[in-house]
Amino acid sequence: MTWLDLPPDTGFGVANLPYGVFSTDGTAPRTGVAIGDFVLDLAGATGEAVHATGSLNAFLARGSAEWARLRRRLTEWLTDPAHRSAVEPHLVPRPAVTMHLPIEVADYVDFYSSQHHAENLGRMFRPGSPPLTPNWKHLPIGYHGRAGTVQVSGTPVVRPSGQRLADGVPVFGPSARLDIEAEVGFVVGTPSSLGVPVPVSDFAEHVFGVCLVNDWSARDLQAWEYVPLGPFLGKSFLTSVSPWVVPLAALDAARIDPPDRDTDLLPYLDDTKARWSLDLTLEVRLNGSLVSSPPFGLLYWTAAQQLAHLTINGANLRTGDLYASGTVSGPERDQRGSLIELSWGGAEPLTLPDGATRTFLEDGDVVSITATAPGPDGSRLSFGEVLGRVEPAR
Amino acid sequence: MTWLDLPPDTGFGVANLPYGVFSTDGTAPRTGVAIGDFVLDLAGATGEAVHATGSLNAFLARGSAEWARLRRRLTEWLTDPAHRSAVEPHLVPRPAVTMHLPIEVADYVDFYSSQHHAENLGRMFRPGSPPLTPNWKHLPIGYHGRAGTVQVSGTPVVRPSGQRLADGVPVFGPSARLDIEAEVGFVVGTPSSLGVPVPVSDFAEHVFGVCLVNDWSARDLQAWEYVPLGPFLGKSFLTSVSPWVVPLAALDAARIDPPDRDTDLLPYLDDTKARWSLDLTLEVRLNGSLVSSPPFGLLYWTAAQQLAHLTINGANLRTGDLYASGTVSGPERDQRGSLIELSWGGAEPLTLPDGATRTFLEDGDVVSITATAPGPDGSRLSFGEVLGRVEPAR
Repeated sequence: MTWLDLPPDTGFGVANLPYGVFSTDGTAPRTGVAIGDFVLDLAGATGEAVHATGSLNAFLARGSAEWARLRRRLTEWLTDPAHRSAVEPHLVPRPAVTMHLPIEVADYVDFYSSQHHAENLGRMFRPGSPPLTPNWKHLPIGYHGRAGTVQVSGTPVVRPSGQRLADGVPVFGPSARLDIEAEVGFVVGTPSSLGVPVPVSDFAEHVFGVCLVNDWSARDLQAWEYVPLGPFLGKSFLTSVSPWVVPLAALDAARIDPPDRDTDLLPYLDDTKARWSLDLTLEVRLNGSLVSSPPFGLLYWTAAQQLAHLTINGANLRTGDLYASGTVSGPERDQRGSLIELSWGGAEPLTLPDGATRTFLEDGDVVSITATAPGPDGSRLSFGEVLGRVEPAR
Repeated sequence: MTWLDLPPDTGFGVANLPYGVFSTDGTAPRTGVAIGDFVLDLAGATGEAVHATGSLNAFLARGSAEWARLRRRLTEWLTDPAHRSAVEPHLVPRPAVTMHLPIEVADYVDFYSSQHHAENLGRMFRPGSPPLTPNWKHLPIGYHGRAGTVQVSGTPVVRPSGQRLADGVPVFGPSARLDIEAEVGFVVGTPSSLGVPVPVSDFAEHVFGVCLVNDWSARDLQAWEYVPLGPFLGKSFLTSVSPWVVPLAALDAARIDPPDRDTDLLPYLDDTKARWSLDLTLEVRLNGSLVSSPPFGLLYWTAAQQLAHLTINGANLRTGDLYASGTVSGPERDQRGSLIELSWGGAEPLTLPDGATRTFLEDGDVVSITATAPGPDGSRLSFGEVLGRVEPAR
C-alpha cells in the first residue's frame, strides 16, 4: 500500500511511522520518521521549523489534533504515488544517520508495575516480608528519576562508582552488581495545568507515544542507599531510551484487556472503559544472545492508570515528561526483565550460548532491548532498539 | 558605602545582591538584583540580552568567573557615586514588581541532611526501629523530586487529594495532614560532564547560590505510598522557592565549621578542607506567628558534600539543577522545621498566640519562611521569603 519498496516484514511500515531526531554528517539534528530502511526528513519534507529544532518537544506541544493531522498527511504522502517525486528527495538511508535523544526530557518518572518483577525484588530485597508491600495493588508505585541522565541508545554505560556494603561496612568502588531493567516508556506531549488531575480517559490526549527504556541499575549501590527515600545513585547515572517514539495512534491493534485484578480500585484508577494494556513483546539480548522475552501486556497497571495516578494530587504535566513502566517481567524465568531476577540475585548464573556465564554485567558487555507489537493485518510493528555497551569505571 | 539611601538594617545591602526574575505591569520578565527597597533592572542597566530571557539560567550557564565579574561591576555601580545617574533610572521600587520563578529547574533533588529531623521522622514513621537508618551517617540520603512543580513563592497551595489509609483501608480524598518542610535550596549554574564526579572542592565552581524552599508535604499520602520506592505524590504537588537567589559569593561571613561527626567518611565526602556549613537562621511563621527558628548551621551534611555525592556515580549537572537540604530541624522543639515534628505527629497541637491550635495545615493558613545570615561587619543578609497560602482541595 506504499509506493516505497519496503523490505518484507519490516517493522517500520506505513502503519508505524515512529518519530525520532536524526542528523547526517555535518547537518543539524532534525525530526524524522522511520519508514522501511529510510528516514523521512520532516524538516525538509514539510519545510516547517517545528521539525528543525533538534527535539520532538515543539511538535508534541501542539497537541493530539496536530499529531493526527500530520499522521494523516504522512500516510497520504507514502501511499499515494502522486507524492512520490516530492517526497523521495527527503528519504535518507537509515545506515547514514546518527540518532539523537528524541525529546528534551522534562520530568522522568519510573513506575514499578509488573507484579512478577515487584514480587521477585521483594523476595530478594526484603526476605521474610511479604513480597508485595501492602500498597502495591492499590496504587501504581513510582518515583522520580534523574531527567538529566536520560540518554539515547548507544550512549556508553560507564560503570558507576559509589558506596556499597561489604561485610557490613560501607566501601567505595565500582559497582559489582551492574544490571539492566527492560522497560517501556511513555512520552507526554500535551501539558496539563497545575492542580488539575488528568483522568484515565484523557490518556491519549496527553501521551504522544511509546519508546523502549533500559533503566541501568547498580544493585549494590541501590541496596545500601534506598531505605527510606528510595533509589537514587543506584539509578541516576544513566537511563537509555530508544531513538524512535512510536505514536499511540499506531497501536490500535496492540490494545488488549488488562490482566485480572483481585483488588478493588479507587474510582480514579478505574480503567474498565480505557483499554490501554499493550501487547508488546520485549526481547533482551546480552552480547547478541536472547536471554529474556518479557511480556508487556501482563503488566498489572497500565500507562493510562499511571498517568492518572501521577496527576491525581494536582501535579501538572509538561511536554517532554517521560514515564516508564518499571521492569517488565513475566511469570517464567526467561521472561524476567533484569539480571538480578534472571540470576536470582547472583545465585543462579546465566549460561550464554558461547559457554560464558553471567550474574551481573561485565565490562564490554552489550545489552540490547527490542520490541514488537501487533500491527494491522497480522503485521508486526517495531519499536527499534535501545542498546548500551558497558565501559570500565573511570 | 553606597550612594543609595538604604533602610537601616536592610538585609538587601550592597554585600548581598541576590538575583531574581521580575516584571512590572505589562513588561516581560527579566533579571534583577535586590538592593534595599529596589530592584536593579539588569536587562536595562547592562543592556545585555542574557538578562532579558525570563530566567537566570543563561547567565548562570556562563560560569563562576562571569558571576564574579558581574558582582564586581554591580558593587562598583552601587558604591561609586559616579555611576549614580546611569544606574538610578534602572531602579524599580520592589512593591511595584511581580517576582517569577528565578530558574528553569532542570532536575530537583531533595536531601535529608538534618539529623534531628531524620531522627524525629524515623521515630514517627518507623516506631520500634532505630530512628536513623544504618546508611544515614555514611552518605547524604536524597531522592529526586518533581522539577515541574517547583514554583515561586506566593503560588497557591491547593490541598492535594490522593490515597491515604483510614482504619487500615485505602480511601481517596483531600490530604488531612498537609505539612511544610523548611529547607534551604542550592542552585547549580555551571554544568558538569556525564561520567565525571564533582569533588567537594569544586562546589563553588558549580553552585551559584542559595534560596529558601518549602517542600509542601501530604503526610498521609506519603505514609501510604513511600515503601519501597520513596516519596512521590506526597511531595510532587508543589515545592515553593523564594524569588531571590543569594550568591555564594555573598556568604563568606556565614561559613562555619560543620558539626562534629562521629562516623568516618569515605574520602569523596571529606570536607575538612571545604568549610561549607552556613550559619543561616530560618524563621517559620504560621498565620504571622513565629512557630520555629530552625538552625541551618547544624546540618550534618553540607551542600558541598551533597553535590559530591549526587555526582559520584557519574551523574552530570545541568544549569538550573536545584537541590534542597531537606527539612532543617534543630534539637529544640521550637527549632523543628515541619508541623509533623512541631505537633509530634499531631499528638501535641501547637497553640498560636490567638488561641487557635494546629496540628497540620488548615485551608486559609499562610506559611512564610524567611532567613538571615551573618554579613560583613556585623550586618545581616536577608534571603527574602518563601510564602504560601493553603487553598481548599478542588
